[in-house]
Amino acid sequence: MDKTLSLSICQMKTGNDKDENLKKAGEMIAAAAGEGAEMVVLPEVFNSPYQAELFPRYAEPFPGPSTDFLAAAACKHGLCIVGGSIIERDSQGKIYNSSFVFDERGELIGRHRKAHLFDIDIPGRISFRESDTLNAGENITIVHYKSRLFALMICYDCRFPELARAAALEGAELLVIPAAFNTTTGPAHWKLLMRCRAVDNQLFVVAASPARNPSASYQAWGHSLVVDPWGDILQEAGSGEEIIHARLDFSRLEQVRQELPLLRQRRKDLYRLDYKAPGNGIV
Amino acid sequence: MDKTLSLSICQMKTGNDKDENLKKAGEMIAAAAGEGAEMVVLPEVFNSPYQAELFPRYAEPFPGPSTDFLAAAACKHGLCIVGGSIIERDSQGKIYNSSFVFDERGELIGRHRKAHLFDIDIPGRISFRESDTLNAGENITIVHYKSRLFALMICYDCRFPELARAAALEGAELLVIPAAFNTTTGPAHWKLLMRCRAVDNQLFVVAASPARNPSASYQAWGHSLVVDPWGDILQEAGSGEEIIHARLDFSRLEQVRQELPLLRQRRKDLYRLDYKAPGNGIV
Repeated sequence: MDKTLSLSICQMKTGNDKDENLKKAGEMIAAAAGEGAEMVVLPEVFNSPYQAELFPRYAEPFPGPSTDFLAAAACKHGLCIVGGSIIERDSQGKIYNSSFVFDERGELIGRHRKAHLFDIDIPGRISFRESDTLNAGENITIVHYKSRLFALMICYDCRFPELARAAALEGAELLVIPAAFNTTTGPAHWKLLMRCRAVDNQLFVVAASPARNPSASYQAWGHSLVVDPWGDILQEAGSGEEIIHARLDFSRLEQVRQELPLLRQRRKDLYRLDYKAPGNGIV
Repeated sequence: MDKTLSLSICQMKTGNDKDENLKKAGEMIAAAAGEGAEMVVLPEVFNSPYQAELFPRYAEPFPGPSTDFLAAAACKHGLCIVGGSIIERDSQGKIYNSSFVFDERGELIGRHRKAHLFDIDIPGRISFRESDTLNAGENITIVHYKSRLFALMICYDCRFPELARAAALEGAELLVIPAAFNTTTGPAHWKLLMRCRAVDNQLFVVAASPARNPSASYQAWGHSLVVDPWGDILQEAGSGEEIIHARLDFSRLEQVRQELPLLRQRRKDLYRLDYKAPGNGIV
């Protein structure tokens, strides 16, 4: 089992034109591949604008143009792609905010439907209701990749510490979180939450945001992050379009868990987290 | 029910002489009372040095000199004292790291025995084994005070997000955490953990550290903190001896929970935290 994983986050600026967004994603994936990435992570809703009322218009089935694009890009470059998220329409017409993961042969190895919908109302600052148009996923998602496990969460899912804890208890060594915080919640909580999930659960956290787009209705925070199991930031983006690279060294995870054996020290006689058995989300 | 609570943290420097430590605590409590504090919080092991091999020597029963002192000080100044912690010896001779809380009449209203013992070994940085001499508490502790609930945790307890979550689910609006991080874990994690527990559970966090004592074997981090339910820092101490004051406004808690209704948005169909019924710890 490889002791390291080289990964890139493509913090891309998305616009209203889906074809343009896919084209941009393809260019950034190619650039990441050129830097030696074994895994590339795209941001939440990377193929469309992040606007609840537009989600039905941009929704597409699986398989569909965006997932075909992701599978082909993964195969072409021989790497794993965590396809940020897209708006997925199922066979009954219900739509979800869904992340699809393809391995280096272009095979689907995981899918997560956002389980916690982003409904927030801070007067004068930010108001958003995903639940107006989206359905919530019904699963905790853990993906096997090269004999390692990673948990897949989307944005608001990371607000709920139970999901990250369940992932760690299941053996995940990495949380991959396509996400789009905004200019209110971003400066307040983005780095805090990503670092604390890493520290509490002693695993890597990879959080992929879109770049800020001044002309969009939703102002993404950016600041894509890679955090190690001690909470140290390995890489952090600014707010603009860029690719960040990091090499995860899993011996660091083992070291942290040995020095500070938090997961073993839990008081299972005082509390216990029960959860629905996680899966890779492929139906 | 009062909409606010005025509280002080006495970040005191402790030494080897228990009488001197009690005297110092008395002076700082009096000063805090003079500033209008309704609640005063002392740091972890405020009456003794923080050294595992010395705990048996400094241990005392309840009631005993240190808890008598706390009860009398609470009554004299007409305020609630969260007595940091002391090393408590029970009737069977077992010792614990325990926090005792007295109301303004000097009545015991809560006791928490540290439930997660601090066993850590970071070669060349910090090594400590509380479990060499201490026993772990068997309870999650929630205290009623003036019609509000607060959870009582001691230091390493705060590393385990389950305790803070259980407290919030039980209706606690405040976590009071006497604690002594050190110069390795402090800069890495102190503020991160205290702020994230506040943000995840949308409650106030009050974390009381001893001041740094250059001649002590254990170098406390200091930086006592009061954090609001949005994660904003209301007050923060430096590393030296000082008293910090803050007024908690519980309408802020209500506002944050309305704007971002995290506790209601938990997916109880996907995960559930089961825990032993909390009590006030008074036997």
